[in-house]
Amino acid sequence: MKMIVDLQEYSYPIWIEANCLDSLSNQIDTSRRIALIADEGIPDIWIQKVRSQCPDSFVLRFAQGESSKCFLQYETLLKEMIRHDMTRKDAIIAIGGGVTGDLAGFVAATYMRGIDFYNIPTTLLAQVDSSVGGKVAIDVDEYKNIVGAFYQPKAVWIDPNVLQTLPPRQVHNGLVEALKTGLIQDPSLVDLFEEETLDLTQIITRSIAIKKHVVEQDEKENGLRKILNFGHTIGHAIESAYGLQSYLHGECVAMGMLFFIEDPELKKRVLSIYDRLQLPPLPAYDTKELMSYIRHDKKAKHQSVSIVKVPRVGTFTIEELSYEQIEFILEKGALA
Amino acid sequence: MKMIVDLQEYSYPIWIEANCLDSLSNQIDTSRRIALIADEGIPDIWIQKVRSQCPDSFVLRFAQGESSKCFLQYETLLKEMIRHDMTRKDAIIAIGGGVTGDLAGFVAATYMRGIDFYNIPTTLLAQVDSSVGGKVAIDVDEYKNIVGAFYQPKAVWIDPNVLQTLPPRQVHNGLVEALKTGLIQDPSLVDLFEEETLDLTQIITRSIAIKKHVVEQDEKENGLRKILNFGHTIGHAIESAYGLQSYLHGECVAMGMLFFIEDPELKKRVLSIYDRLQLPPLPAYDTKELMSYIRHDKKAKHQSVSIVKVPRVGTFTIEELSYEQIEFILEKGALA
Repeated sequence: MKMIVDLQEYSYPIWIEANCLDSLSNQIDTSRRIALIADEGIPDIWIQKVRSQCPDSFVLRFAQGESSKCFLQYETLLKEMIRHDMTRKDAIIAIGGGVTGDLAGFVAATYMRGIDFYNIPTTLLAQVDSSVGGKVAIDVDEYKNIVGAFYQPKAVWIDPNVLQTLPPRQVHNGLVEALKTGLIQDPSLVDLFEEETLDLTQIITRSIAIKKHVVEQDEKENGLRKILNFGHTIGHAIESAYGLQSYLHGECVAMGMLFFIEDPELKKRVLSIYDRLQLPPLPAYDTKELMSYIRHDKKAKHQSVSIVKVPRVGTFTIEELSYEQIEFILEKGALA
Repeated sequence: MKMIVDLQEYSYPIWIEANCLDSLSNQIDTSRRIALIADEGIPDIWIQKVRSQCPDSFVLRFAQGESSKCFLQYETLLKEMIRHDMTRKDAIIAIGGGVTGDLAGFVAATYMRGIDFYNIPTTLLAQVDSSVGGKVAIDVDEYKNIVGAFYQPKAVWIDPNVLQTLPPRQVHNGLVEALKTGLIQDPSLVDLFEEETLDLTQIITRSIAIKKHVVEQDEKENGLRKILNFGHTIGHAIESAYGLQSYLHGECVAMGMLFFIEDPELKKRVLSIYDRLQLPPLPAYDTKELMSYIRHDKKAKHQSVSIVKVPRVGTFTIEELSYEQIEFILEKGALA
């Protein structure tokens, strides 16, 4: 199926379908020079599938992992673009997870002041979350996404088949962002997590439909789009403090959400979904340590933080909490 | 006077007035944290005038010259932004010429995916040209403006008083871009160059009025905006080949325009304006050398170049010329 993200002159289609990668050349002009950007972990089979449809293409690979979202890698890719004589009419196709989309998207946003950018997310996390919305960026030191742009892709292809080569833990990690979307906006999406079998295509589709709706109303994150940060304030802090050794992004967001689900019945439902997804339990944490990361978050205003809460399934409130209030919540614990 | 550049949600005012810098704090919120970015050549008096209106500001200086439009300087400024805890609500004010506007504008465009950017151009060239239009960029090796963005400022202040500290050659250099604008769009602007005294404020105002009109119709340079490249194809090649030692940007553009003014009477008028502005004459050049730079220009499509010609004062045509045709024109010479 095809969904259109409606952002006036920046509108673009998202194709969600098994094998949709096979018909890329029917949907866009692949006769231009095209840079395929992917990390070293992407199986050749996906690269070749795309390349076979782009006669004038070349492949730029970079090391897997968040540490590639840095100035040096950004500069290296831009120099490769120059070396390959890319013009303003040419295009970039990113094939990979969130890191690849963020990095390749920022290269596309700034090379010659912006060339066409296409995205093929290959992790569930990127499919349901980062590939929609046009946020591209690199990190500087410990500051995630501190340098970047709002730059919409010209098309996104989501092929559930590419998930087959993904370990189950990675799939569950991505499902957390879909569950998050359901919790704040769509009870029926949460229900899908309680069906006998998890229908990934349906979960992806509903999840994108909601994210698309939010982005359409607030492209530059001045208001509504903040609800997508549900679970992320404490989640990011856990990720910064303990994530590198032990946890994935989605797993940390799952932990972060628990603190702000207000309905005890809903919290129980969510905990059994977490069990089903084999998510790791919230570890013993040091409140002071987490607070130091929360204060450090560059998106935090000077004296308080916007926190998204879920009073009932499918609804949200946004509250401005002081650091003291957040510290109190952390001390009480997520199951209080 | 105040002119509004009308780009819907990205509209912004340009203030053109002696001493308009004195009332900055009436026009924008200067209570935020503000980074003032300037090169080491800007007299302290202008910095202080602005700073005195911004209680929570700090100054970032960088070395004068085009070579500061590089990755390293871009990265350094971004790290300074982080070090000063700049948030998405804070702002950058650039004070300087084209290099400063391009560099500081690109920092503003990408720090936290874009924060408010204000520009105070202090050279005539920046006042009549680069400060209007939202093109920001850095260079990579010999490729000028190859990495950047279209990012509109939130306001521009043009104070003709700041030109008093500028050497006359710099003023004349800037006047070339104003003359260019007149040649392609406005006979009365060309007339101003033949008045007994050159009225800078009037020339700046008319010139910006036209540039504003062109930018409003073609923000992202997909069509009409190309006419502003009049004189620049050969001009850039002369600048690359001989500029560093001897010529300024506007001087090279003046040379480049001569090749494509088709009316011989108009060419005579223009040559006497050049005399009045004490512009250097076109040097003996090596056609093959200039051609190698023209072929190299990243904006050139693969086999031809869009060239702007002026058949009569205030009018233009755009033609797609092959490299052979341009070589032929260079061999015939500018006065043919």
